[in-house]
Amino acid sequence: MSKAELSPPRGTRDFYPEDLRLRAWLFEHFREVARRFGFEEVDAPVVEHAELYQRKAGEEIVEQLYHFHLHDRHLALRPELTPSLARMVIARQGALRLPLRWFAIPQCWRYERMTRGRRREHYQWNMDVWGEPDVTAEAELIAALFAAIDALGLAPGDVKLLVNHRRLLEEAVRARIPGREEAFEPLCVVLDKLAKIGEDAVLEQLSDPAGPVGLPRAVAAELVASLSARGLDEAGRLAGPASPALAELRRLFELLDAYDLADRVAFDASVVRGLAYYTGIVFEAHDAGGKLRAVAGGGRYDRLLESLGGRPLPAVGFGFGDAVIHELLVERGKLPDPRRRLDALVYPFSDAERPAAVRLAQSLRARGDSVELVLGHVKPKRALADADRAGAVRIYLVGPDEKARGVARVRELATGQERLEPLPAGG
Amino acid sequence: MSKAELSPPRGTRDFYPEDLRLRAWLFEHFREVARRFGFEEVDAPVVEHAELYQRKAGEEIVEQLYHFHLHDRHLALRPELTPSLARMVIARQGALRLPLRWFAIPQCWRYERMTRGRRREHYQWNMDVWGEPDVTAEAELIAALFAAIDALGLAPGDVKLLVNHRRLLEEAVRARIPGREEAFEPLCVVLDKLAKIGEDAVLEQLSDPAGPVGLPRAVAAELVASLSARGLDEAGRLAGPASPALAELRRLFELLDAYDLADRVAFDASVVRGLAYYTGIVFEAHDAGGKLRAVAGGGRYDRLLESLGGRPLPAVGFGFGDAVIHELLVERGKLPDPRRRLDALVYPFSDAERPAAVRLAQSLRARGDSVELVLGHVKPKRALADADRAGAVRIYLVGPDEKARGVARVRELATGQERLEPLPAGG
Repeated sequence: MSKAELSPPRGTRDFYPEDLRLRAWLFEHFREVARRFGFEEVDAPVVEHAELYQRKAGEEIVEQLYHFHLHDRHLALRPELTPSLARMVIARQGALRLPLRWFAIPQCWRYERMTRGRRREHYQWNMDVWGEPDVTAEAELIAALFAAIDALGLAPGDVKLLVNHRRLLEEAVRARIPGREEAFEPLCVVLDKLAKIGEDAVLEQLSDPAGPVGLPRAVAAELVASLSARGLDEAGRLAGPASPALAELRRLFELLDAYDLADRVAFDASVVRGLAYYTGIVFEAHDAGGKLRAVAGGGRYDRLLESLGGRPLPAVGFGFGDAVIHELLVERGKLPDPRRRLDALVYPFSDAERPAAVRLAQSLRARGDSVELVLGHVKPKRALADADRAGAVRIYLVGPDEKARGVARVRELATGQERLEPLPAGG
Repeated sequence: MSKAELSPPRGTRDFYPEDLRLRAWLFEHFREVARRFGFEEVDAPVVEHAELYQRKAGEEIVEQLYHFHLHDRHLALRPELTPSLARMVIARQGALRLPLRWFAIPQCWRYERMTRGRRREHYQWNMDVWGEPDVTAEAELIAALFAAIDALGLAPGDVKLLVNHRRLLEEAVRARIPGREEAFEPLCVVLDKLAKIGEDAVLEQLSDPAGPVGLPRAVAAELVASLSARGLDEAGRLAGPASPALAELRRLFELLDAYDLADRVAFDASVVRGLAYYTGIVFEAHDAGGKLRAVAGGGRYDRLLESLGGRPLPAVGFGFGDAVIHELLVERGKLPDPRRRLDALVYPFSDAERPAAVRLAQSLRARGDSVELVLGHVKPKRALADADRAGAVRIYLVGPDEKARGVARVRELATGQERLEPLPAGG
């Protein structure tokens, strides 16, 4: 094989033991938070029908679909889990106890040019509530998101949640250009790119008469300017006091106060989210310095089920990837170094002591210890060095003398203290 | 979307909460056994370069490769993990502490016609030892395999391990047709199909002059007949007393005696395994009734690293899938029904009590409880029914009276007993 083919495909990762310990550490925290919030874990296939993701173009996630044809099927590696979950809900709609509280930690793929050093796969913790129209669902989800941030060891000031409401923008669009409902989703997709491609390019795309939005340039400029609104008071000026979206935002902030999270959340009109399907409140968690991409993001998507042929069902959720949180933990000096835990190495000096060593190793395992049995024929010095390198707590030495006396010599590796323990009976 | 597209792609699975609890139960046992045996978890990409799997044709696993071209790359969904692990070992050869004890639980894919109701994806617990030529490695792996069988609740008699040695067959081939080393791997691939396609078809393939094996028909018939050998004494007659392969088998059985496993393991010359890369001892775990496919299987593959361009390194491992063990657990009446564990439901009667209910739910979560906070506006009867259906241990009722008194009414759902508990301070 060529050297390139001995690497993982570009943009994907191998997980050596130390990498996997870190992944397991992260996933354990996600699972533990989900458990405490009463969410149940689910999963769906890694490969789905590509059609599941074929929404309106313009979304990064659809344009970067990892898709292919195989035996007359058009398939895709999942770029996100939500459409699969929607499919699963539709298949059992009517038989499920609502609201559903589902979580998952799927690996997801996107085929992106590797210019920015971003990977083509990541894991994403998904938390979704299906069947609850009330903003209490948003509040619970945001609380779970912060519970994970805290559990991972970040300080309360390290991450800030920015919240917006798509209907604020929708109301603004409707007031200016009535009867153009179909332009709203592509509008959001374009506005989401503001930080990435800049104001000029956004205005260009919004006012392109051949494009899916096609706004008069002045209206486009007005909308882009409105995205600078910060804080609920400015939101009020944008929306007018009777706006239902504004009322929902106010209620969310009141609820978050009961969770002691009000000072970690702020209204920010520039948060639009790049997925077409959001319909209500949207939110993004960012590092306080604002240097990294979003740590997590989500929102309400009350029309997704209908768009896939199901009966209407309100839903809200977020995704929390493994990449940006890793960068942030490194930056804040909070990335742990989970060590291997090995209770014991069992070392028979020769084949004559091996049956006794096997029985000893098995009896230690039966009581729950993690035990490496030294394999093959190894010199004592090497066995001791191995025990050190493996980080073992102790080594059980079974030589001819010990065997004759029916004992093992046990050395605690931290202190060098030795004692004798009886070998298990047998053989 | 069409109805077909609302299902998972053919041969793949959705995991609803009850499915995922069962998967998690199985994986926990795999992980726990691996931990006790001192194995470290690893993982590799789901999508690999297809070339990694392009060995000699004839293997089911290669012929059923789920592969596709994308942006000038020839990629494949992994059909097994071992080649990826070999790639990872090669990339760090020299820097790794040997022997490596690695395990993984990858999802793997094969594109098989769905005639037999078999799925196109499965999870497979992989346990491998890299860098140990001695048969003590085989013994440890077989002990771990049985530790999992036992941990899953099967009886000692439910699963039997059949063992063979590829070099026994190799010695027999060499004695009959010297200088045909290249025919050995395809020979094994064909012999492995005996139970599936029958003796006539196997003889046909072995003696096809245009095929990769091309044995004289009489020699082919002799080899097939030799596969009926059972027990080490018959193996001895096959091999001759000076056979190194036979000596290794005898040593394995002695070692397994120390593990108390000798009566669960038997020599069986018909076990060949369908993977081309095995070089030594091979084994398969079967249900005692012999009705199902193999529960697990593995063997020694000392030349895989070389064949991929690495330096020679002995290796041995097994794969233990999630499909056949599931069938066997069902058949033996041992499939568990892992229930959801929910400690509490917290129910505010109305918005006025919600902040107090939020603080209560958060304080219960902080102490580790799994808590559903009732969302939206729900009648008391519905909240109680929900608590029952969710299997909650208790429900915390926070109504106007309770809130005024600064307490929650706590009802244990198993007994109906009620008590009052103080609400956390705040707000």
